[in-house]
Amino acid sequence: MTKLRIGIAGISGRMGQLLVEEIAAAGAELSGGTARRGAAGVTVFPDADALFAASDVVIDFTIAAAAEGHAAAAARAGKPFILGTSGLSPAQEAAVEVAARSVPLVYSSNFAPAATVLFALIEKFSAALPPEQFDAEIVEMHHRQKVDAPSGTAVMMGQAVARGRGKTLAEVGMESGRDGHTGPRATGPIGFAALRGGQVVGEHTLLFAGRSEHVSLTHRSFDRRVYATGAVQAAVWAARQQPGLYSMRQVMGIA
Amino acid sequence: MTKLRIGIAGISGRMGQLLVEEIAAAGAELSGGTARRGAAGVTVFPDADALFAASDVVIDFTIAAAAEGHAAAAARAGKPFILGTSGLSPAQEAAVEVAARSVPLVYSSNFAPAATVLFALIEKFSAALPPEQFDAEIVEMHHRQKVDAPSGTAVMMGQAVARGRGKTLAEVGMESGRDGHTGPRATGPIGFAALRGGQVVGEHTLLFAGRSEHVSLTHRSFDRRVYATGAVQAAVWAARQQPGLYSMRQVMGIA
Amino acid sequence: MTKLRIGIAGISGRMGQLLVEEIAAAGAELSGGTARRGAAGVTVFPDADALFAASDVVIDFTIAAAAEGHAAAAARAGKPFILGTSGLSPAQEAAVEVAARSVPLVYSSNFAPAATVLFALIEKFSAALPPEQFDAEIVEMHHRQKVDAPSGTAVMMGQAVARGRGKTLAEVGMESGRDGHTGPRATGPIGFAALRGGQVVGEHTLLFAGRSEHVSLTHRSFDRRVYATGAVQAAVWAARQQPGLYSMRQVMGIA
Amino acid sequence: MTKLRIGIAGISGRMGQLLVEEIAAAGAELSGGTARRGAAGVTVFPDADALFAASDVVIDFTIAAAAEGHAAAAARAGKPFILGTSGLSPAQEAAVEVAARSVPLVYSSNFAPAATVLFALIEKFSAALPPEQFDAEIVEMHHRQKVDAPSGTAVMMGQAVARGRGKTLAEVGMESGRDGHTGPRATGPIGFAALRGGQVVGEHTLLFAGRSEHVSLTHRSFDRRVYATGAVQAAVWAARQQPGLYSMRQVMGIA
Repeated sequence: MTKLRIGIAGISGRMGQLLVEEIAAAGAELSGGTARRGAAGVTVFPDADALFAASDVVIDFTIAAAAEGHAAAAARAGKPFILGTSGLSPAQEAAVEVAARSVPLVYSSNFAPAATVLFALIEKFSAALPPEQFDAEIVEMHHRQKVDAPSGTAVMMGQAVARGRGKTLAEVGMESGRDGHTGPRATGPIGFAALRGGQVVGEHTLLFAGRSEHVSLTHRSFDRRVYATGAVQAAVWAARQQPGLYSMRQVMGIA
Repeated sequence: MTKLRIGIAGISGRMGQLLVEEIAAAGAELSGGTARRGAAGVTVFPDADALFAASDVVIDFTIAAAAEGHAAAAARAGKPFILGTSGLSPAQEAAVEVAARSVPLVYSSNFAPAATVLFALIEKFSAALPPEQFDAEIVEMHHRQKVDAPSGTAVMMGQAVARGRGKTLAEVGMESGRDGHTGPRATGPIGFAALRGGQVVGEHTLLFAGRSEHVSLTHRSFDRRVYATGAVQAAVWAARQQPGLYSMRQVMGIA
Repeated sequence: MTKLRIGIAGISGRMGQLLVEEIAAAGAELSGGTARRGAAGVTVFPDADALFAASDVVIDFTIAAAAEGHAAAAARAGKPFILGTSGLSPAQEAAVEVAARSVPLVYSSNFAPAATVLFALIEKFSAALPPEQFDAEIVEMHHRQKVDAPSGTAVMMGQAVARGRGKTLAEVGMESGRDGHTGPRATGPIGFAALRGGQVVGEHTLLFAGRSEHVSLTHRSFDRRVYATGAVQAAVWAARQQPGLYSMRQVMGIA
Repeated sequence: MTKLRIGIAGISGRMGQLLVEEIAAAGAELSGGTARRGAAGVTVFPDADALFAASDVVIDFTIAAAAEGHAAAAARAGKPFILGTSGLSPAQEAAVEVAARSVPLVYSSNFAPAATVLFALIEKFSAALPPEQFDAEIVEMHHRQKVDAPSGTAVMMGQAVARGRGKTLAEVGMESGRDGHTGPRATGPIGFAALRGGQVVGEHTLLFAGRSEHVSLTHRSFDRRVYATGAVQAAVWAARQQPGLYSMRQVMGIA
């Protein structure tokens, strides 16, 4: 069987290196990449069109400014494209959607496989465990360098809880960072607590606390490698799909 | 609005007392019950037919031998029936199914609301997190009097994991009670570990351990009251349903 | 062997009832108690002097206003006294100290045996795990009715961490209730986070987060009975001691 | 101030590399090392005597067979020596003790700072929380390649619990790997449970489960770097000590 040839936009960076390793671990073949700096031991192509020509599918974790051009190159080549860049403008997102009419295109802000599954299922938990009976609390821990709280992932967890109740997080309300005289806990708002210390990559727990039973859902990240793992999984999956815009949920089979 | 009148088969026992309290907490009305012993302060009916006649719905957590007669009484009265008894014989189960043709009948071995939701969703986690990438481990803790391991609930968790993979637990395999030279962990079998101590009512954790990320799902029971809470919730739900045999999953809206 | 006779000031309340049960569980004998209301099935004495006369040791969990009189009665009777009341004024505390010159007197704000041990040892952890290498974070969870944060027990944990460093908590600093733009975590201050939900009696975790290893210490209370258990343990211990003012730490052998 | 010059026996291996990084992180100076293979960018000395001559203190994580010669070289040079090798024979240990008469020598099987502190304090917990009231349970998790259970560290935890009770682990007894009909939990034996999955470096929890309160102590290792961190900390400490044989507990100030 011919191995799937996967290309990497931005092969010389930290994520590029992890993708190289994960492509090998998945039994696929590295076609090469594009690079702003030199990249030793790998094929470097002069531009995205050359990269797509030599690849069955291309993965891009570079910068938002590159997304539009790469998506267009994917469409020209008729090759699947995996896009993990965040911070796209509406115009850049529109260009991605146009490309997805002619090729399979997986676009996601979080390629971690288990996190994707957890986020999708949080909505189902939340829909079945109503706030009148279960208080929802989210606690996250990150390394000591993190400068804000709650984490973006914690907020996304809260949004998933709210969606499960058919509301927005703003409608549900947040009790973040309790300190001092808080009064009794209201029914409805989601609690958020943030721990900071050491070099924790990321831990998130969502707790549904009922009177006589608790359910808690925890995700722990140990390594940013997990995004490379998921992107390669998406590449293998996309190679078998019809053109269209897909999310990581669909890759994981739980959309 | 008229309050829902709920009756209790076996009102004098420990579960009967909890049901009395939960019916009040739910804003429903206690019609009374049947009792082998005297029961102070509540209406005691001479038989199941009298109990059903005075009730809009009846809850039964007594013994398997009573299930058939109670189900028949429900059918005669045309009233919904909530059955939480375990250990029914095939003949007794058949009688329950017959009654469910004419009345709404909720029959379940575990009425804990959050546990029901968790069990249903474990299958979805398991289907999306394949054993080649995620090792499934189940750890449970119970009070020091418990005489066997793993717990029945832990085994049910394992069965749910197996179902998510389209297999039986026997097909997937169990690594229970690791001790001594075990060799490296196999890919596929589910690990089971049992802690015993103190007066823990029941804690169960299912962990999906990947290389760079973990997802864990934990259920903690603090009080057997939770079964009464769920049964009353089922009674309120059943009162609005068409005839049929239902499980607690359907009550929770996740069947 | 003659059983130890234990008396209870305030036998008719909730704590009085738990003490009655724990005295029986410890194999001691209940001498009776004093009571503002009627108390069925137990001997009720007209005043503290009568209670002490009939007892080998007396336990008091009533109100601050009663502490001075009870301590004086203990001294008059020459009997050990276990005092669990909080909120004593300086004058009331001085009276307690006077009584402790003539009888063994155990005075503590928290009689939970394992919590006492944990608090004493937190200082040793803190002394050995310096803030330059380990960030100290405290997270606590309580029931939804609790109106303030962090909990008094969490603050006491923080004080124990500070003492281990030879400082006060004010000197060390608190980062309580992180929310919004916090900046990177400072080295030194202790983090506090509060979860609220369900009917949790009390859970406290102190985490020392280093770069490559974490140590966490968790205490979970399931039942206020634990204070009665500890007070009876203190009564049995005090009956063998010389006069003096003791804390629960000394009862547990870790002062 | 002159920087402390630290040398590394076996500088070319994985642990040697981590030690190089940790020496820099601690603000000390790397004198160089001995190496079986080439080591780029560092000074490599022909033998241990040359290494000691150029160093203020030397760290050795190589093999048991080298311990005797390195300890003798330390004594000849009159320089402190940090020995992290395991599996020494009685004769090799005797040679280490001889060297420790003339130089400060830190010899330990586990240089992780927080783990050292935890192990020392477990004895104090165990001494104060008797088995009649608190069931001791140990649960550990390791990566899927581990071939035996319970882990050596879990057994050491159990030994520390036993020591706190004035007994050996054999006298206390182990309930390891519960499976099937176990009968009720005995009072006294320590429970052991093993989880295996993913790439977990090492997690250990010791739980004292009482009727109404639990205390649990958890240690998590994220990276083998922690042993290098601790060894460098030991080197800095040893440079200020009198001759003698020391353990990591003394380095941490809790012997």
